[in-house]
Amino acid sequence: MIETDALIVGAGPVGLFQVFELGLLEIGAHVVDSLPQPGGQCIELYPDKPIYDIPGLPATSGRELVDRLLQQIAPFQAPLHLDQEVSLLQRRPDGRFDVATRRGLQFIAKTVFIAGGVGAFQPKPLRVEGLAAFEGTQLHYRVDDPARFAGRHVVVVGGGDSALQWANHLAETGPQAAASVTLLHRRDAFQAEPAAIDRMRALCEAQRLQFAAGQVSGIEVTDGRLTAIKVLGGDGVTRVMPLDELLVFFGLSPRLGPIADWGLALERKQLVVDTEKFETSEPGIFAVGDVVTYPGKKKLILCGFHEATLAAFGAVRHVFPDKAVHLQYTTTSPRLHQLLGVETPGHDDEH
Amino acid sequence: MIETDALIVGAGPVGLFQVFELGLLEIGAHVVDSLPQPGGQCIELYPDKPIYDIPGLPATSGRELVDRLLQQIAPFQAPLHLDQEVSLLQRRPDGRFDVATRRGLQFIAKTVFIAGGVGAFQPKPLRVEGLAAFEGTQLHYRVDDPARFAGRHVVVVGGGDSALQWANHLAETGPQAAASVTLLHRRDAFQAEPAAIDRMRALCEAQRLQFAAGQVSGIEVTDGRLTAIKVLGGDGVTRVMPLDELLVFFGLSPRLGPIADWGLALERKQLVVDTEKFETSEPGIFAVGDVVTYPGKKKLILCGFHEATLAAFGAVRHVFPDKAVHLQYTTTSPRLHQLLGVETPGHDDEH
Repeated sequence: MIETDALIVGAGPVGLFQVFELGLLEIGAHVVDSLPQPGGQCIELYPDKPIYDIPGLPATSGRELVDRLLQQIAPFQAPLHLDQEVSLLQRRPDGRFDVATRRGLQFIAKTVFIAGGVGAFQPKPLRVEGLAAFEGTQLHYRVDDPARFAGRHVVVVGGGDSALQWANHLAETGPQAAASVTLLHRRDAFQAEPAAIDRMRALCEAQRLQFAAGQVSGIEVTDGRLTAIKVLGGDGVTRVMPLDELLVFFGLSPRLGPIADWGLALERKQLVVDTEKFETSEPGIFAVGDVVTYPGKKKLILCGFHEATLAAFGAVRHVFPDKAVHLQYTTTSPRLHQLLGVETPGHDDEH
Repeated sequence: MIETDALIVGAGPVGLFQVFELGLLEIGAHVVDSLPQPGGQCIELYPDKPIYDIPGLPATSGRELVDRLLQQIAPFQAPLHLDQEVSLLQRRPDGRFDVATRRGLQFIAKTVFIAGGVGAFQPKPLRVEGLAAFEGTQLHYRVDDPARFAGRHVVVVGGGDSALQWANHLAETGPQAAASVTLLHRRDAFQAEPAAIDRMRALCEAQRLQFAAGQVSGIEVTDGRLTAIKVLGGDGVTRVMPLDELLVFFGLSPRLGPIADWGLALERKQLVVDTEKFETSEPGIFAVGDVVTYPGKKKLILCGFHEATLAAFGAVRHVFPDKAVHLQYTTTSPRLHQLLGVETPGHDDEH
């Protein structure tokens, strides 16, 4: 059980900067994110694409911005709990909040900051009647242990990097190789690294991998087991493709997920906040970034930075009910310099 | 007469970023500032001091931040009219605004953005009864033409860089040198560059400059001319110091100035704005940065960036009344890439 002044849900750029603004006010924070690395959409959707509208950074990238923010918040040493999706948020009798993740982390937090962006990223599902029942047994949207596919007949669906990398990997892994690997994509054109495409073609040449063009239109089930998929080819003919395991890589899409279940006021799947403290309909729960709505809201990172700043000040009365907090400037405040671990100009360091 | 979509009053960091956000929406802007260089308080008050709370810039300085913003807004080629104080702002019969500066620039603007910070920087006055009447004749807060002091008995008041530099300069300028130069400061200790202090001491040794410790307590006037000041010394004795010219360098202090006279709603000398469009009580006049107030307002640069962004969107209906404008992202929008003069990844440049 982790007790904290503030729990931040979401480690995208705005969630990370929330750590900074809380830190300046001496409010300690833990951060939870459903992705395995910090950065949110910046890393998931455009790690290497340029961003031009972060003030003071004429051109940056998702990855660079996140690295810069991680450096900026480093003095506050806020623990990042990654690959952890928050599944429970509820108020305790003492006014604080119980927060739990699917994988078993438990927090007691005086304040909660939802920086959930467009939601938790989830694999896009393959929607075919009856298929969902096999998720986790024969249907897989991620690979935790490649060894489980040794000696199995595997079909990998998708045309992007993940699909090609796993198809190649399973086809070429020596003693643990699959019995057969078929890559299925709607057409013979791929959105993947050229090297992965070249490798895939070479494995097809060597007859260690098969490629098929088509779309899954149905499944065959025998004795409760998935035995085959039906594939509609570009020629309009449906063929039956037997298999033991089906791997689907259609990319990730965001889903508001459990945030929608926490009883907070919503408007078009966005959390309603005021523009003074960016507090939700539940006192002590703040929300910032793309997940919120208010009159004039624009889903821009720079707006999230402002929201995080005012939300931090809004949290003071929950964390330090008796403390009067005034705005201090990082340029001039010796106390902020101490918190940031930098020297105050014109003063000798005490050490 | 300059016609423009938007006139920005104030070239501090927020006024500069206002150019950027307007530019992304294809709203052209001119910028006016009372200081001789862009950057506002960042340059005037802390050019070389570190700033730690600009998101994505773990440590920067006033000067570096301003340079970065100037680089960021360069694609929009907004003219900067510096050393120009706005003296008039009024609505025209056609709904646009007439804006004029003291030194004679005239604009017609569809929208006005007041990014006036803490106000226009003005020299701090020496408050002694009867003295103000001599401003511009024998009393000077700035030096436009040092040659006018040739052969005159000059007293320079102040203990900072400007006071010492001008005292040194007037004492040592060959044929155009003053007849005598006295540096008057309340005590024999200075807040100035060591080199300027050393030079001043050397000039005193050489009897080309005199230093006196004391404070101006009164003046003597004969036939409408300022003939002497009364100086109260540290010893409690008041002495008469004859002079022809009095130069005062007490530093600059901000003054809201004419902004207070434009009939806009004020609260404690701040412009009242909404948090949706950051529009003042006068439609078409927006205000951003330290000059505004709204519930939760914090005088932070990063908050001004957000305000400038929403204000730009607020201006669209005044500049393009019939255009529906949607948020586009600098990472993905080919149109924004064209405006920024950068290449769209994955597309060949047309040239």
